[in-house]
Amino acid sequence: MPDQSRQLVLNAFLMHAGHHEAAWRHNAQAPADYLPLKHWVEVARTAERGLLDSIFFADVPALQAPDRRPSESLDPTVQLAAIAAVTERIGLIGTASTTVEEPYNLARRFASLDRLSGGRAGWNVVTTGGDVGFNYGINPWPEAPERYRRGDEFVDVVLKLWNGWQDDAVVGDKGTGVWADPTRVHAADHHGEFFDVQGPLTVGRSEQGHPVVVQAGSSGPGIALAAKYAEAVFTAQRTIEEGRDFYSTLKAATLKAGRNPDHLKILPGIVTVLGGTEAEAKAKAEALDDLIVLDHAHEQLARAVGLPIEQVPLDAPLPSAVRAPDETTGSRYQLTLDLARRENLTVRQLLRRLGGGRGHRVFAGTPEQIADQIELWFTTGASDGFNIMPATLPDTLTDFVDGVVPILQQRGLFRTEYTGSTLREHYGLPVPADRSAIADLRVG
Amino acid sequence: MPDQSRQLVLNAFLMHAGHHEAAWRHNAQAPADYLPLKHWVEVARTAERGLLDSIFFADVPALQAPDRRPSESLDPTVQLAAIAAVTERIGLIGTASTTVEEPYNLARRFASLDRLSGGRAGWNVVTTGGDVGFNYGINPWPEAPERYRRGDEFVDVVLKLWNGWQDDAVVGDKGTGVWADPTRVHAADHHGEFFDVQGPLTVGRSEQGHPVVVQAGSSGPGIALAAKYAEAVFTAQRTIEEGRDFYSTLKAATLKAGRNPDHLKILPGIVTVLGGTEAEAKAKAEALDDLIVLDHAHEQLARAVGLPIEQVPLDAPLPSAVRAPDETTGSRYQLTLDLARRENLTVRQLLRRLGGGRGHRVFAGTPEQIADQIELWFTTGASDGFNIMPATLPDTLTDFVDGVVPILQQRGLFRTEYTGSTLREHYGLPVPADRSAIADLRVG
Repeated sequence: MPDQSRQLVLNAFLMHAGHHEAAWRHNAQAPADYLPLKHWVEVARTAERGLLDSIFFADVPALQAPDRRPSESLDPTVQLAAIAAVTERIGLIGTASTTVEEPYNLARRFASLDRLSGGRAGWNVVTTGGDVGFNYGINPWPEAPERYRRGDEFVDVVLKLWNGWQDDAVVGDKGTGVWADPTRVHAADHHGEFFDVQGPLTVGRSEQGHPVVVQAGSSGPGIALAAKYAEAVFTAQRTIEEGRDFYSTLKAATLKAGRNPDHLKILPGIVTVLGGTEAEAKAKAEALDDLIVLDHAHEQLARAVGLPIEQVPLDAPLPSAVRAPDETTGSRYQLTLDLARRENLTVRQLLRRLGGGRGHRVFAGTPEQIADQIELWFTTGASDGFNIMPATLPDTLTDFVDGVVPILQQRGLFRTEYTGSTLREHYGLPVPADRSAIADLRVG
Repeated sequence: MPDQSRQLVLNAFLMHAGHHEAAWRHNAQAPADYLPLKHWVEVARTAERGLLDSIFFADVPALQAPDRRPSESLDPTVQLAAIAAVTERIGLIGTASTTVEEPYNLARRFASLDRLSGGRAGWNVVTTGGDVGFNYGINPWPEAPERYRRGDEFVDVVLKLWNGWQDDAVVGDKGTGVWADPTRVHAADHHGEFFDVQGPLTVGRSEQGHPVVVQAGSSGPGIALAAKYAEAVFTAQRTIEEGRDFYSTLKAATLKAGRNPDHLKILPGIVTVLGGTEAEAKAKAEALDDLIVLDHAHEQLARAVGLPIEQVPLDAPLPSAVRAPDETTGSRYQLTLDLARRENLTVRQLLRRLGGGRGHRVFAGTPEQIADQIELWFTTGASDGFNIMPATLPDTLTDFVDGVVPILQQRGLFRTEYTGSTLREHYGLPVPADRSAIADLRVG
């Protein structure tokens, strides 16, 4: 019997037409249908109908190659705020980069989302590995050690800002005209290597205290940052052995950082393609892969590994000179290269794998088979749940909600109704303390 | 007969419990009711029911004195995105500061709001006069000339980013797998005194091209910036003579800047208090003023003018040493001081005026009387409409929509249904050109 006290976390990681890069060619929708609010309302309501814990948007603040797939991307906090207004319970997690943002602005935006949504927000902390400095006058783009040092301080500032208002700060006494007690609103009073931020924030705490802190890097500095701050980690793990290794490593690091490992949820990504039979699912995955424009992906791969395209022939294994471009951001990429070598894939086969899930595990099968995988990983120390990445939207998410969720419910692994209203309640995370104990930081 | 081709613009400038600083004490609502989404949904839907052109949120990115009035403030783009999801037509204008933001992030956030809302967004450009550098490590806070030089370049960058995607850039050819034509997506390629921003933006143009550019400064540099870029100006004008002076000055400056003056809408603010009779409205205004906590406002005034509080006695006129604290941001303040002197107000009377509308004109009267004012200003060269500032929310807005709008409609001054779906269509503004003519900036 599964441990009923331990909750399976299912997050829907959503991307325009779906995670498969050719999803927009395969889907029934018109190409222009992926950006308007209507698409996201439909998708978010489906996820909420399935009682999923949360939805999640990744983000890179620069235009990616616009020619081959839906390339526009909205600011995640703005997109999630709109979704907040048309949903009731589901968590809302957005990505934002510590390298190109100001802590005060970012803290305020996510706190605003958290307040508007009644405590459903989460911030996925990234340092942005790929150079986007050209949009910000940042040149050269900082190397990983500096990015992570800045990221660490950035999170520290944001937490100070988020926890500044005591939960009892607003008095609201109409008789005396006292709105808030200023001695219960604390400054951040932060003065560090990268930031000087006084505060307080313009936004008080929400029903869940503050937004859930998510982290997505699985490299060395990423693990260190996660162990220190993260309450959920989105990661790419291709095999259950890798998943267990990562799980035990990160939980141990969290314990060593002085935190309760149960308060950090580890959620590997899994790109799902569903079918009524295994053959049907695999045929759909094949059909999607057939729609990948290989010449384009081929050029991108050659550029990424720094080799002339003629030295990376399509129908041969990867040249031995090819390695991940950066020790940090390449961690998912590195896993993919390892897989290519392990399975002796040709470049063509590798490109199909990458197009299907950008390095994440792709699983095509029946609802029963995917439920088996989720149960196996969850019950044998490889994950606390999954970051579900529908290959195509909205149909694969609908398939998951209607096909997989009921099986997990029947097995006693997943909720049959929302028992809480905040993201922390869904994830089983405690409400953090405010800064009321820090007397020397009081203002007013 | 009014000129039917000229459209009266009515924008609702909204602030937590209302513009009157004691509104939260007067209103029926519980103090905690002003920040949740429910309040803003109700207010925005009322404004839309009244066919108003737009709603607007001011913004200062620092906590104002939290003790005497609802002091929390959410990020306007996040708040407006949530409202976008529960409204259909009304414009959505938010304030953001060119002094504490990055152009790429700001351009992206407002473009995201514009896309999600189907072309209903507007950006109110401010340079933020009061020092908020303590939240951003900016010390000293730049003086007005530098702030406006940066602001000018900032708007230039944002416009380049907003117009980068040609309207025909997305091809969406499922057969060939071509999503977008990269030769139709243009970089900003901006390299200036303050910013180096390459682009392109991650977001294409909306149904209205890009968000409407609004400007709120009425000082010298504010007028120059408005003449160059603004499509609407929110201003504080206390008398119709002042209003006509400002109107003709700004329209002339716009013409001189090479633009069509009809494409810049001038909207003075008017704080409204409504009643079934004039006596009832004035009694409500008095009751509100009686709820202002004078000792607190008194302290603030003394601090603002740099005098010890005992040198600013409550029941005497303002000392002659008192002047506006800054030539730029003090413009509204200056108007108020001028009024105090002109009407020989005591400090107590002045504080009641300031508490009622922070320097904006306060008008308490019947719907008929306010409609008369609006018509007079609109038809005699003092404004293109008004920035309606309900003294209390939601009731004063409801009073305006149910009482004043029908009168303006009967007089043929205001729409009886929305004829367009974008903010530009409501305001009667043209869709700006994209950057397709700028061949040398093409990328790809």
